[in-house]
Amino acid sequence: MDLKTEVSTRCNDNNQGKVERGSSTPILQRECHGQISHLAIDIGGSLIKLVYFPRDSDGSSKDDKCSTSRERNSISNGDINSSIFGERLRFAKFETSKIGDCIEFIRSKQLHLGRCLHQECPSGEKTIIKATGGGAFKFADLFNEKLGVSLEKEEEMQCLVAGANFLLKTVQQEAFTYADGQKEFMQIDHNDLFPYLLVNIGSGVSMIKVDGDGKFERVSGTSVGGGTFLGLGRLLTKCKSFDELLELSHQGNNRVIDMLVGDIYGGQDYSKIGLASTAIASSFGKAISEDRELEEYKPEDITRSLLRMISNNVGQISYLNALRYGLKRIFFGGFFIRGHTYTMDTISVAVKFWSKGEAQAMFLQHEGFIGALGAFTGYKKHDHEQDQFVQRCSSKVSCADNNLSGGTIKSS
Amino acid sequence: MDLKTEVSTRCNDNNQGKVERGSSTPILQRECHGQISHLAIDIGGSLIKLVYFPRDSDGSSKDDKCSTSRERNSISNGDINSSIFGERLRFAKFETSKIGDCIEFIRSKQLHLGRCLHQECPSGEKTIIKATGGGAFKFADLFNEKLGVSLEKEEEMQCLVAGANFLLKTVQQEAFTYADGQKEFMQIDHNDLFPYLLVNIGSGVSMIKVDGDGKFERVSGTSVGGGTFLGLGRLLTKCKSFDELLELSHQGNNRVIDMLVGDIYGGQDYSKIGLASTAIASSFGKAISEDRELEEYKPEDITRSLLRMISNNVGQISYLNALRYGLKRIFFGGFFIRGHTYTMDTISVAVKFWSKGEAQAMFLQHEGFIGALGAFTGYKKHDHEQDQFVQRCSSKVSCADNNLSGGTIKSS
Repeated sequence: MDLKTEVSTRCNDNNQGKVERGSSTPILQRECHGQISHLAIDIGGSLIKLVYFPRDSDGSSKDDKCSTSRERNSISNGDINSSIFGERLRFAKFETSKIGDCIEFIRSKQLHLGRCLHQECPSGEKTIIKATGGGAFKFADLFNEKLGVSLEKEEEMQCLVAGANFLLKTVQQEAFTYADGQKEFMQIDHNDLFPYLLVNIGSGVSMIKVDGDGKFERVSGTSVGGGTFLGLGRLLTKCKSFDELLELSHQGNNRVIDMLVGDIYGGQDYSKIGLASTAIASSFGKAISEDRELEEYKPEDITRSLLRMISNNVGQISYLNALRYGLKRIFFGGFFIRGHTYTMDTISVAVKFWSKGEAQAMFLQHEGFIGALGAFTGYKKHDHEQDQFVQRCSSKVSCADNNLSGGTIKSS
Repeated sequence: MDLKTEVSTRCNDNNQGKVERGSSTPILQRECHGQISHLAIDIGGSLIKLVYFPRDSDGSSKDDKCSTSRERNSISNGDINSSIFGERLRFAKFETSKIGDCIEFIRSKQLHLGRCLHQECPSGEKTIIKATGGGAFKFADLFNEKLGVSLEKEEEMQCLVAGANFLLKTVQQEAFTYADGQKEFMQIDHNDLFPYLLVNIGSGVSMIKVDGDGKFERVSGTSVGGGTFLGLGRLLTKCKSFDELLELSHQGNNRVIDMLVGDIYGGQDYSKIGLASTAIASSFGKAISEDRELEEYKPEDITRSLLRMISNNVGQISYLNALRYGLKRIFFGGFFIRGHTYTMDTISVAVKFWSKGEAQAMFLQHEGFIGALGAFTGYKKHDHEQDQFVQRCSSKVSCADNNLSGGTIKSS
């Protein structure tokens, strides 16, 4: 079964029952040297992200039905499973440290079984699962041992770019800006998409200059990312999960711990260099001047300072790189963001501040699954068929009723 | 008493005894509307830095002697007092939270007494002390109340630039690079000094494009600086002082807490994007994947990760700004560095890494006192007389026997 024919049937309400089998073009034969899974996987330092087509309980794929309702199912580790493309493509995530849970999830959903399950297929060949992220190397043996599957490694940056391009070209309500508590979806002209900077904030941060489909360069990054938020957050607050930290930060006040310009200047602005008294002069800088122990600070305030420090920093370095390479737009993705309003707001403010209003941060609806989605699109690399896949899928996604162009960055 | 005549006598061994009185040019009359102190002060968010000419025990200034030996005296708060210019100019620092100790130090050294102490001077006029940093605003009333002096506020960035230019033009063994455990002093051609980027790492970080004497712009900065190191360091380790944290970091191993590329990639390099397995993918990222509490981590390892995170980050943002503005050199100063080898090494490596070897970080011997020194030079603003001051002082400083030019940055 190839992805093209699967897609070509799954949005046809009249075509109930088994999905069609793929034709055997050379490229498909190459991909079908083993059985192809319904699943692609991105195994990062902190999180495992899954993108998959669900199977029915009898083991067949569900891709012959086009439901319209939207469901959100909790999975074993408390994460959320959302879907796009008319309930077709599903998303899940697990902590990398709980990879056993992830493997059980795959087994329970029969996602490790190949496409040829109920049909004539070469026997004795392992199912192939497209996998990206460092864990595709690190955990290859474990997947083989536990699920009897072979991870086909896809290069991490390539997957991020493929995923982002796929989303930006396919899903009209995908990219948005965030300001004053409001999302504003952007309609991106496909002919004016490139070049852009893709900033993926995972455990660490990668910054990729994207010049076209498959044309990219990782130009920068920073080690101060989501892993820093969770790692430092855990050490400082004893919270166990990222979401718990985020939740806490929402109720906190960073001014309790951050040293503000006004704290140094006796409540005054430092107007000569354009810094308001409320600007952060030194993240966590107020924790130096008082004889307060860690336990005397509220976890809410700590997490807010931490989130702001990291978001600000990523926003600043991203903008400097966009400027360096003359890139028109910056798209922020990665599981650090998680649709969290304060995170998006801080990144947006940072980009606006450092660009003196010339640039805007943009975010992606499917931010956390860019790499996994890129790996998924790798099941079909032939450009023409990929285009058909994109075209059909996009027809299932409604278009926003706004008509905004993305923020652009000018060189100084 | 004006600075010119003081300087003109203080390096003359034949001129023992009282210093000469200044002539009354208009500019000197303006400066002497109150009595001028021997002291300039830079009150930052974390530290107070003093630059002063010492007085003899009888209250007279010591500036008629030219000793050649070098002494280092501990002061009440355990800080070090070093000197340059043939034992003339002295340096001291205090934590801003212990401003009372600082005031007592000034009183004990009689630094709050004006130049005209034993001579005919206008009575009833307050001694003026040049002061910069936010604390010049915040603590003005306290200095008036406790010492009866008036703080004359000097703009912070202007002082940093004046101090850096003074040092770079005056002291030949001032600027150096650091690599492989070795300092290498740079002889900077005065005609090829500008433009450069001055990065002052205090509680927060300021990045200043310096185009000439008094010609500058604060182009960037980051809130992740020395205050972050001390603030987070205190919360994470219960250490009380910056120096204690630095000392600990020297014995630590950041790989215990930082998530390395190899941790994600199963021990492998991510060679396609030029990241070695030992590169830090995520600062503090390893603290997420283990069920280890804060108490189970060694303070040594925590402080090392923290120091590396901050140094790396400052190095990266600095380089991006130098590149943005086409600046040839980056000089790093501020009390965050403190001549600490690991800090300088990390900043150097960061600049080298992000510039792909095109740029080198440079450091300043009197790193922590740039702003205070800039305020001190403000006692004499007339260019011609300033030049004389510089010329005479520099004659007391020996020249390094190397002849290296500074590292330069090329645009990409």
